[in-house]
Amino acid sequence: MQTLTDPVAVARALIRQPSVTPDPGGCQQLLGDMLAQLGFAVTHLPFGEGAERTPNLFARLGGQGPHICYAGHTDVVPPGAEEDWRFPPYAAECVDGVLYGRGACDMKGGIAAFVAAVARRVAQGAALDGSISFLITGDEEGPATYGTRKVLEWMQAQDQVPDYCLVGEPTNPKVLGDMVKVGRRGSLNARIIVQGTQGHVAYPHRADNPVHRLLTVLEALRATPLDNGTQYFEPSSLQVTSLDVGNGATNVIPAQAEARLNIRFNDLHTGAALQGWLETVCRQHAPRARVEVQVSGESFLTAPGEETHQLVQAIKQVTGREPCLDTGGGTSDARFIAQYCPVSEFGLVGASIHQVDEHVALTDLEDLARIYETFLKGVGV
Amino acid sequence: MQTLTDPVAVARALIRQPSVTPDPGGCQQLLGDMLAQLGFAVTHLPFGEGAERTPNLFARLGGQGPHICYAGHTDVVPPGAEEDWRFPPYAAECVDGVLYGRGACDMKGGIAAFVAAVARRVAQGAALDGSISFLITGDEEGPATYGTRKVLEWMQAQDQVPDYCLVGEPTNPKVLGDMVKVGRRGSLNARIIVQGTQGHVAYPHRADNPVHRLLTVLEALRATPLDNGTQYFEPSSLQVTSLDVGNGATNVIPAQAEARLNIRFNDLHTGAALQGWLETVCRQHAPRARVEVQVSGESFLTAPGEETHQLVQAIKQVTGREPCLDTGGGTSDARFIAQYCPVSEFGLVGASIHQVDEHVALTDLEDLARIYETFLKGVGV
Repeated sequence: MQTLTDPVAVARALIRQPSVTPDPGGCQQLLGDMLAQLGFAVTHLPFGEGAERTPNLFARLGGQGPHICYAGHTDVVPPGAEEDWRFPPYAAECVDGVLYGRGACDMKGGIAAFVAAVARRVAQGAALDGSISFLITGDEEGPATYGTRKVLEWMQAQDQVPDYCLVGEPTNPKVLGDMVKVGRRGSLNARIIVQGTQGHVAYPHRADNPVHRLLTVLEALRATPLDNGTQYFEPSSLQVTSLDVGNGATNVIPAQAEARLNIRFNDLHTGAALQGWLETVCRQHAPRARVEVQVSGESFLTAPGEETHQLVQAIKQVTGREPCLDTGGGTSDARFIAQYCPVSEFGLVGASIHQVDEHVALTDLEDLARIYETFLKGVGV
Repeated sequence: MQTLTDPVAVARALIRQPSVTPDPGGCQQLLGDMLAQLGFAVTHLPFGEGAERTPNLFARLGGQGPHICYAGHTDVVPPGAEEDWRFPPYAAECVDGVLYGRGACDMKGGIAAFVAAVARRVAQGAALDGSISFLITGDEEGPATYGTRKVLEWMQAQDQVPDYCLVGEPTNPKVLGDMVKVGRRGSLNARIIVQGTQGHVAYPHRADNPVHRLLTVLEALRATPLDNGTQYFEPSSLQVTSLDVGNGATNVIPAQAEARLNIRFNDLHTGAALQGWLETVCRQHAPRARVEVQVSGESFLTAPGEETHQLVQAIKQVTGREPCLDTGGGTSDARFIAQYCPVSEFGLVGASIHQVDEHVALTDLEDLARIYETFLKGVGV
């Protein structure tokens, strides 16, 4: 029990269980054992079959009052060439106050800090007025088909939907206390395929150049910014990521042209409305165009309430920093959780993640454990 | 000698010598023999080695006064599936006043009409005050590397540059007498390769999207028409023929984007000036872009003079039609000749060329022979 109050000891133990996506399960087993030791009811929830089998874990302590859930993942991205590392990626070496290893920040260190925070609350003999749970997947870095989404469905079926969820992803760009994420932009991928009529380049009036129609469509899409941003969101961004015609004949107007684009959009838009806009612009300038749209996530925003206020207070108290409330960057599993309850994200510093020599300062691990502990006290669990 | 005054007989003989590009030589040999019969000094000028060996022919009658050259080619495009033809492509069948065969219009029929015109002038015992020559290549439909260009170099070296050249390409869109070509647009191919900086699509400010820079360059190039046309030229035309990025990853801003375009330009532009314009626009919107330009032909215009006037008069006299003086369509070997002397183009009707069942009306062959004969009289040879 005593080691569990030490985030460094917990983090080292978790790092030493290699768990490249999808986590083969050993790391989740270890975490489950730790939580069981703290009194949690632990349920292992593997979903998917065969090669897609994904370990997941739901663990709950207490059953009344406000239910605060901590969400994250035990899987890690591959270490790359191990000989490029200063220390072996799964050795969890501590040197000069720094812990090295794959997952140190993303996000075994974060999980360890929350385990330590809960262990301290339990050790303090706190009569838990509320309830704490862990939602831990073994596939966040991969396709995520059998991960957090499936666990949430299970939680809903079991009437275990929390009141608030804190995702422990490394949200701080440079220093612990920089940034809390209170939402994420949505993401939409589109493919625009324009049909034209082939012809000789010397007689353009007898052809219908699909490249020109596509260029006009893209001009129209790029002509006006989608918005100027909102209180918590930066402006939505449209990026054309590919153009494909593949016509090697210099004297021929081709029959087809195609573009791919991605839109990262804030809470002024929905995937469906953007799809409608794309279709309207295409209809106007290229009536024979086909538009294929895939919305990989809607935007969401957790309007700052009591829990986020308590999180910010805890960060200020421990670090002396006022974190900004942000919604930038890529997507995370928070987009799935947002469909069930308010969710924010706060964890370690992200500067070294997905790189060789991923590392975390031991003081950051301790400070994060104290922030989580203070937060739990603040929200009364 | 008598058969040579009959354009139908000459055309049938030439069509019966298959001569898909490059003409293997039999058709040129036959033509040379005919011209020798008429008193021409015939020089066979094969250029190129091995597989590139191209037969060419220069033949000249008379050595004084105005020198009128008739230029054309004996090579033909492949017939395609012979079973799709109503009559075998090299049988030169005449049915209901129509001659069928590959090359009937493009341009063995045209050559036959000029041979007949010259034969008639010779038969009339006309004291040739001038001089007539034939410049006939066996590679006009192909790469044309060892064709007309090489013969012109040889002619210059031999001091045989003509005063005026008439190219016998099928210039009439629908009816004999429609159109004389007095110039051609130039043609320029460009490849624009834009370098950017790769990055994650969620952080466009950390990347430099080469697709967006390329789109801005193409917008700028397409924003203003190059010109509104001139007396004999339609407006210059810029066609983007390909766009190539090939980025399959929806969340990645690529490192490079590329476009290909073709400009058909009139006498208000030169290839070099257009290249400069492309480079300037790229420098402005995509400083790291590379521009590769290939000018496959400058524009040229034969300012209508006495010879063209006589040609138009001959057409009016025989057909009753006033031909328009035009510069549209693709390129022809006239672009090489224009560097040496004034050149115009007039031949048969182009509607069936490069297709199955290429054919010519026998009356058109006779009318064209009479037009050429009248023209020769008109210019005094």
